[in-house]
Amino acid sequence: MVGMRGAYGGGGYSNGNESRPLGAAAAAPMTTSTEIASMAVHKVAPPPPQSTASKMKARVKETFFPDDPFRGFKGQPLGTQWLMAVKYLFPILDWLPGYSLSLFKSDLISGLTIASLAIPQGISYAKLASLPPIIGLYSSFVPPMVYAVLGSSRDLAVGPVSIASLVMGSMLRDAVSPSGEPLLFLQLAFTSTLFAGVVQASLGILRLGFIIDFLSRATLVGFMAGAAIIVSLQQLKALLGITHFTTQMGLVPVMASVFHHTKEWSWQTILMGVCFLVFLLAARHVIGQLKCGLNRPSWDKLLFDPTYLGLTMKTGLITGILSLTEGIAVGRTFASLKDYQVDGNKEMMAIGLMNVVGSCTSCYVTTGAFSRSAVNHNAGCKTAMSNVVMALTVMVTLLFLMPLFVYTPNVVLGAIIIAAVIGLIDFPAVYQIWRMDKMDFLVCVCAFAGVIFISVQEGLAIAVGLSVFRVLMQITRPKMTVQGKIMGTDIYRDLHQYKEAQRVPGILILAIEAPINFANSNYLNERIKRWIEEENSTQNKQTELHVVILDLSAVPAIDTSGIAFLIDIKKSIEKRDLELVLVNPTGEVMEKIQRANVAQNHFRSDCLYLTTGEAVTSLSALAKMTKP
Amino acid sequence: MVGMRGAYGGGGYSNGNESRPLGAAAAAPMTTSTEIASMAVHKVAPPPPQSTASKMKARVKETFFPDDPFRGFKGQPLGTQWLMAVKYLFPILDWLPGYSLSLFKSDLISGLTIASLAIPQGISYAKLASLPPIIGLYSSFVPPMVYAVLGSSRDLAVGPVSIASLVMGSMLRDAVSPSGEPLLFLQLAFTSTLFAGVVQASLGILRLGFIIDFLSRATLVGFMAGAAIIVSLQQLKALLGITHFTTQMGLVPVMASVFHHTKEWSWQTILMGVCFLVFLLAARHVIGQLKCGLNRPSWDKLLFDPTYLGLTMKTGLITGILSLTEGIAVGRTFASLKDYQVDGNKEMMAIGLMNVVGSCTSCYVTTGAFSRSAVNHNAGCKTAMSNVVMALTVMVTLLFLMPLFVYTPNVVLGAIIIAAVIGLIDFPAVYQIWRMDKMDFLVCVCAFAGVIFISVQEGLAIAVGLSVFRVLMQITRPKMTVQGKIMGTDIYRDLHQYKEAQRVPGILILAIEAPINFANSNYLNERIKRWIEEENSTQNKQTELHVVILDLSAVPAIDTSGIAFLIDIKKSIEKRDLELVLVNPTGEVMEKIQRANVAQNHFRSDCLYLTTGEAVTSLSALAKMTKP
Repeated sequence: MVGMRGAYGGGGYSNGNESRPLGAAAAAPMTTSTEIASMAVHKVAPPPPQSTASKMKARVKETFFPDDPFRGFKGQPLGTQWLMAVKYLFPILDWLPGYSLSLFKSDLISGLTIASLAIPQGISYAKLASLPPIIGLYSSFVPPMVYAVLGSSRDLAVGPVSIASLVMGSMLRDAVSPSGEPLLFLQLAFTSTLFAGVVQASLGILRLGFIIDFLSRATLVGFMAGAAIIVSLQQLKALLGITHFTTQMGLVPVMASVFHHTKEWSWQTILMGVCFLVFLLAARHVIGQLKCGLNRPSWDKLLFDPTYLGLTMKTGLITGILSLTEGIAVGRTFASLKDYQVDGNKEMMAIGLMNVVGSCTSCYVTTGAFSRSAVNHNAGCKTAMSNVVMALTVMVTLLFLMPLFVYTPNVVLGAIIIAAVIGLIDFPAVYQIWRMDKMDFLVCVCAFAGVIFISVQEGLAIAVGLSVFRVLMQITRPKMTVQGKIMGTDIYRDLHQYKEAQRVPGILILAIEAPINFANSNYLNERIKRWIEEENSTQNKQTELHVVILDLSAVPAIDTSGIAFLIDIKKSIEKRDLELVLVNPTGEVMEKIQRANVAQNHFRSDCLYLTTGEAVTSLSALAKMTKP
Repeated sequence: MVGMRGAYGGGGYSNGNESRPLGAAAAAPMTTSTEIASMAVHKVAPPPPQSTASKMKARVKETFFPDDPFRGFKGQPLGTQWLMAVKYLFPILDWLPGYSLSLFKSDLISGLTIASLAIPQGISYAKLASLPPIIGLYSSFVPPMVYAVLGSSRDLAVGPVSIASLVMGSMLRDAVSPSGEPLLFLQLAFTSTLFAGVVQASLGILRLGFIIDFLSRATLVGFMAGAAIIVSLQQLKALLGITHFTTQMGLVPVMASVFHHTKEWSWQTILMGVCFLVFLLAARHVIGQLKCGLNRPSWDKLLFDPTYLGLTMKTGLITGILSLTEGIAVGRTFASLKDYQVDGNKEMMAIGLMNVVGSCTSCYVTTGAFSRSAVNHNAGCKTAMSNVVMALTVMVTLLFLMPLFVYTPNVVLGAIIIAAVIGLIDFPAVYQIWRMDKMDFLVCVCAFAGVIFISVQEGLAIAVGLSVFRVLMQITRPKMTVQGKIMGTDIYRDLHQYKEAQRVPGILILAIEAPINFANSNYLNERIKRWIEEENSTQNKQTELHVVILDLSAVPAIDTSGIAFLIDIKKSIEKRDLELVLVNPTGEVMEKIQRANVAQNHFRSDCLYLTTGEAVTSLSALAKMTKP
């Protein structure tokens, strides 16, 4: 192939043995054809040289500090920087100095509103976790105060939540009976809470917040629906007044437990009567003695006995991540509605610290609750002060009003729980997921079925595993499209998507749409060879295939296996007397192609083009010249 | 914004509430400006409608049958199809009928050559796996015969290999002492071989061959170098004649074991003398009794005792995948050199079946060996017949020549092993990986260090985990580039890569280069907002930012979280009085945008463009019109 190399200096890059600049244009061959004369050919440039260290730094920054939290600090005097750092750690300092009476009015109303929810829900959720009801109230007092100081969301209503309570209860009950060894159970709950807090705060401090992103929306929708059903079924014990109830959580054992002695029942007639009777009987069970008084310190109850250390760490990890996911999602949702920023990693530190403090003051796992935060938002809260109002209301209750709650029947608590969790079953979301994406729907169903039939943790693990597997499969089997020219333009697009696009005779244009790496280089190699074979068998009636164009526009990265693949495919295409041309390699890919060229000049400048159009024009002209 | 919608019918798609066709072009606004008149605007088309079932079918086919193994079958008469199926299962039928004397001459020479390697290596590798030496010879007899019938590679030299032997030995020794309970150890080895074969054949039958792709080149280079060192160190026992040697594999215990009693040694003077003495002493240890005779059946030795079932299954899985990786990689390498096709999944079935048969005929795990296949290839082999020649030579040895090997000193075996494995340390490859890709180098080093300091299996697991984590991170933190116009053209490219590219005033062009999904939608959301903020703070001196263009050319797929992100970012961009425009969504993305539009018309046709150039031209014109 005769090609006049461009005079471009290649930005100081040397190709080792050959001194021809790599980035130079595959310039027009020496001919007077008007078609070629009118052809504008542009060079493929490598990105500006950068040291490994600075690239690593950039990557680390993008991975762990995508929000660049300290960008406001730059160029400020040292004093201001200190003030900003303190404000960063304690967001309360941001809004408290400018706090006004009108803001307080809004916060007072919303705070009282959520307190009216938090008290019965706190009691109910504590029962869901098999903890004494008072723990639920304690957990609605200290953590919201801590959050008000550290948290950056203005709408989050902090307190115990159903999912984390359910998971903690079910995980701890597997090892210890809450009725048999209540003190040990309580110790394990506080210790798990401590670990949950440590996990949450560590994720924030280590800037690993993206880990919770792996709980996709589909996973959460399925998981929450499953959890809601599991929780509701557990309430059958209270609602039906059953005394010998299974301690397992799964659908099958619970239903077996409910219907074990009902074989002889005549459904249609007796059910209603039994229900009423059971209701009345159940209503006599009350939640028991409730002492007035605030949270007692519980650091002496933290238990690091090796027998239970694994259990509490695991429980802490799972409930920590679950409650973090809920809290961050709630925070982001309302921040987006009111158009302010919530710093995810900062929030994790706040929620984590709040749970660490909680575990030392008789609280169990807390976070921002979906339902109460929505109420808080709708009631017009302005700042985290509404949490303080709620906490103070709970405090008053704890100090003076506890006797009122002694006569709360279990059946009421059961009803509260069911009413709260049933809203977690989000049918419209499920339908939308089904319509949008069948694979996501599968993930959703797996999470749901896993929670219902296997266990809460394993259902979640299966759904996350499936989501990650799907992402990996997208890499392992990347999309490749055959492109054609949209008639009357210089635009090349997917032949399948654009009916107006037409094949260019003699040229096969393939676009790869994924990073090329170890997981897909073998696949791409075989798939491209197959495409060439098919092309040869269909095309040879009209024109012979003579060029394969690989459009690399959508290949963001390449590794050593990927480069080995490019070299291999080039060799085997050339063995078939065809030519391989690369179009628009992005920065990183171009850089690696260049490095591969240092040893042997595999990809010379005449097989690198900036656009498919230029490659086609240039190569068609050459084909006409060499094969007249 | 006033825009005349194109008259294009949108291919039968309805937008629910609004009847405006989605795919229609964002056509030229009503104005006589020459700039706009000359503007060619093309519509973004959705892919042709396809049912979920047919899409699923296509995806399953692409995932599990990327090579489309039965494509030759189409349109053939039934008889031919049967013949082709038999030939597919037994590739020997492909080449045996046309086999000639001249081919046999080549195969005879190469077969005898590899036999001369296979016999000492077989004995040595069996010792590496702590198995009786004769097992190594048995394993060089039956499996090559099976492979000759079923395998499709012409160059693979089948037999025991060092890595699989090492791993099997080290895993089984953890549970059972080969000297204490030799029969049990042998039983476990055969059972593990059976499981290895079953795993390998299943991967082939279930078309899951891509699983071995997750062992990247960097992982293998590091792993093999580490394994070579571990194996060589193990030979110190034979070379130094140490009798009380550690059974552990790690660097630290082995070195401790070697140097435990040498504190008083005066290195410089005694070492040489001791070495010689030890050599002479060690040479007296011979490999012991070797009975003449062929493989005995060993199916009665397969042990499915629950005590050891977990161990043998795990050993089978790991050695199976490792030996498969080696065999497939060797097969592909030489197939690519001679330009013929090796069907990966078919090869897995062949190697798997060969090991299943092997486990019943006193053989342990075998595969295509790197070193011997290279010798085979260089000696000029033409077909799998060279394996048959090798097997027959081994058979003759087994029947008549065994007494000759009785006097092989252990030190010779140690030397053979070291000589064989030291070649696995591939310094040039390590250097190349270092130059190409620092992350790959890290994976390589982790595999190496893991094997040396922790254990063979865990070293491998760490390296694979790291590779997968890296791929996930590429998805979690996708590359985004800010694009600019290359002066004098209509080409838009990365500003960082192309110094000739310039920003378009008032327009921010962002290209996303990854599938948009649950793992990155939060990141993208925050990152884009930050980019707009930065753009606003730098640009407002000259021109105000009024449009954000998201180039989706390199987004191959999107899930429900991704669509939610697009809708959310559109809303928050519009809240800032900016306009969001999407450029060139690919088929799947366009389809999902369309589905999202059914409920609410989020992305109307006037915010979808086919190319960045058209979007910029059209929007600049509009900006001039609305803000004169």
